[in-house]
Amino acid sequence: MQGPQPPQQRQQRPETAYTPTERTVPTRAAQRASYDKDLVHAILDEGYVCHLGFVRDGAPVVLPTLYGRVGEVLYVHGSTGSRPLRAAGQSGEGLPVCLTVTHVDGLVLARSAFHHSINYRSVVVHGTAYDVTDPEEKRQALDALVDHVVPGRAADSRPADKKELAATAVLRLDLDEVSAKLRTGGVNDEPEDLSLPHWAGVLPVRTAYGTPEPDPDLAPGTEVPGYLTAL
Amino acid sequence: MQGPQPPQQRQQRPETAYTPTERTVPTRAAQRASYDKDLVHAILDEGYVCHLGFVRDGAPVVLPTLYGRVGEVLYVHGSTGSRPLRAAGQSGEGLPVCLTVTHVDGLVLARSAFHHSINYRSVVVHGTAYDVTDPEEKRQALDALVDHVVPGRAADSRPADKKELAATAVLRLDLDEVSAKLRTGGVNDEPEDLSLPHWAGVLPVRTAYGTPEPDPDLAPGTEVPGYLTAL
Repeated sequence: MQGPQPPQQRQQRPETAYTPTERTVPTRAAQRASYDKDLVHAILDEGYVCHLGFVRDGAPVVLPTLYGRVGEVLYVHGSTGSRPLRAAGQSGEGLPVCLTVTHVDGLVLARSAFHHSINYRSVVVHGTAYDVTDPEEKRQALDALVDHVVPGRAADSRPADKKELAATAVLRLDLDEVSAKLRTGGVNDEPEDLSLPHWAGVLPVRTAYGTPEPDPDLAPGTEVPGYLTAL
Repeated sequence: MQGPQPPQQRQQRPETAYTPTERTVPTRAAQRASYDKDLVHAILDEGYVCHLGFVRDGAPVVLPTLYGRVGEVLYVHGSTGSRPLRAAGQSGEGLPVCLTVTHVDGLVLARSAFHHSINYRSVVVHGTAYDVTDPEEKRQALDALVDHVVPGRAADSRPADKKELAATAVLRLDLDEVSAKLRTGGVNDEPEDLSLPHWAGVLPVRTAYGTPEPDPDLAPGTEVPGYLTAL
């Protein structure tokens, strides 16, 4: 993938991939980029914390926040403590954002310091975020946020009431200008370094869950739900 | 912490904390913010992947990249595939950035969807990133990057040679305008929800490492180093 596709090729591109744009084609390690929708969805669905970037007074701001995916739409929890984020989202004009999700899969230890790397999968979404005002859409968005953190949990909790819905800011960001980037595999040392005495290889990294810590006020006999033990 | 400190109070602030500024004081959940240097350092030192935000053509860009800390300086791997990032860093004028590091410590499952949350620790750094041109500083920065990923590894690998140093872009960002934000503890449900039948509590989350996967070309008998098994 060396550059943006011309318009006539864009129209022939199947619906299984996002159309690359000037800002979703990397200038380095372009072979690690992908526009495959299934891959993008899988990376997004594995996470629940994104890093949301926007511009405030000309300067960049990056905040961690929760997100959920519904089809080709991402919903982002907008109550991050950033007044500009909420205000801009609610202005109706929308807020230009860049939303990034990253999973680390392994530490790549090469014999040379230079070839040390990380195995990772990331998704970068460029677009404009809009405040969700429709109560029904907001309700579905909050369910998606909760289910992204723990699949199946939304149905096993008290839904938000009107007051809570009004107190929650949710931003909507369409999946349109999107790319994934990933590194997989082993060590790429220089041939002349292979005989060096340093251990080389990959240390796998993953997210682990501990033993659920029940709330002290939990009614006696309340079992840990299956969707939690499944994690 | 309700707002920025007036100048006379700033001067009296001990060196153990960063001085809050207008953009490091959150407008929501301000009680979760901290400017304590030891806390900020501890959060930064536990990670190695940051999300670096900058502005390109007026729009935000957020990319994951590696970082390391040396005292009150962060070094950021600038070879991210983004030409504007590298060019701006190398222009001498520096690049306004926002660098964010986030650790997820637990999933907070409340009885109400509204009170679901995440236990986390994050650090947000605002500032200007400059290209590191001094070879000795760049070498130390690369050691810091490698040692952030695996403490003790830099000394057990072949150092970068001149060509490799020249091929690596490293940005320097001073720790000056910095804040931490964290949520800890349990569920904050409404009193009237406590009798609901939904399980509530915290599911701890941590990073786990798998069994090291040696490079196929590893000399037979090369032991897995202690700094890896310590992880």
